[in-house]
Amino acid sequence: MPSRNLKKVPINDLKIGDYAEISKKMTFDMVRDFSEISDDFNPLHLDPNYAEKSIFKRQIIHGMVAASLFSGLFGTKLPGTGCLYKSQNIRFKRPIFVDDIVKAKVQIIKINLNARVLTFHTECKVKNKVMIVGEAEIFVPKN
Amino acid sequence: MPSRNLKKVPINDLKIGDYAEISKKMTFDMVRDFSEISDDFNPLHLDPNYAEKSIFKRQIIHGMVAASLFSGLFGTKLPGTGCLYKSQNIRFKRPIFVDDIVKAKVQIIKINLNARVLTFHTECKVKNKVMIVGEAEIFVPKN
Repeated sequence: MPSRNLKKVPINDLKIGDYAEISKKMTFDMVRDFSEISDDFNPLHLDPNYAEKSIFKRQIIHGMVAASLFSGLFGTKLPGTGCLYKSQNIRFKRPIFVDDIVKAKVQIIKINLNARVLTFHTECKVKNKVMIVGEAEIFVPKN
Repeated sequence: MPSRNLKKVPINDLKIGDYAEISKKMTFDMVRDFSEISDDFNPLHLDPNYAEKSIFKRQIIHGMVAASLFSGLFGTKLPGTGCLYKSQNIRFKRPIFVDDIVKAKVQIIKINLNARVLTFHTECKVKNKVMIVGEAEIFVPKN
């Protein structure tokens, strides 16, 4: 697996307000691959005919597909490689559709240097509207 | 996409204590596919040499790969097709390794018939040890 701009920021260099973000198109390929991982074959996501008759009239992505971008930002950008997820709270506020471009952002709101734990505000926006919001705790191992 | 034992339980048939569960082996293919979806190329998950020198000495899966099974249980079993995620809180208590068999379980702890919202306790175990724990809210549309 090629390395892809992997970063690691030392915990002592971090400050409250630091953030990382990424924009990514939510393709049907991602939805299909996530269905296989999660066993979530909910036809809201996979079946255009079913989705047409549903509350949102067209195929939405699994909320977790967009929320997974938080994992990516933590693991490769802030704080970067080697970090570990302690917790993630997620509120899905609005539906995200296949082919929407999601902008995910994680921003440090608390630093506990003794415990080596960072707390982040996490959100996903589509066209400047907040679709997913939450908080995460990340542990930064010494090595 | 073939349908795979998709279920839908009418909200009025549900009661507190009802649960659904699934056991699934966390393969490296799942980890690799999740990396592509999430852009999470943290070498803890992908690089055996890096992982060997890390805190857990071998490759762990992304916590979200196991937690994604909750989405699968909701969307295909309980309450089943057509349901929507409102929220998910996740605490990652212990590392899960590549090729571990995860048993995910979601169990109803609250039913709000007026709002059509179910609250679930959610957990992932490996060999009877709780690795991931949390709570979720699921909205059940009328149609």
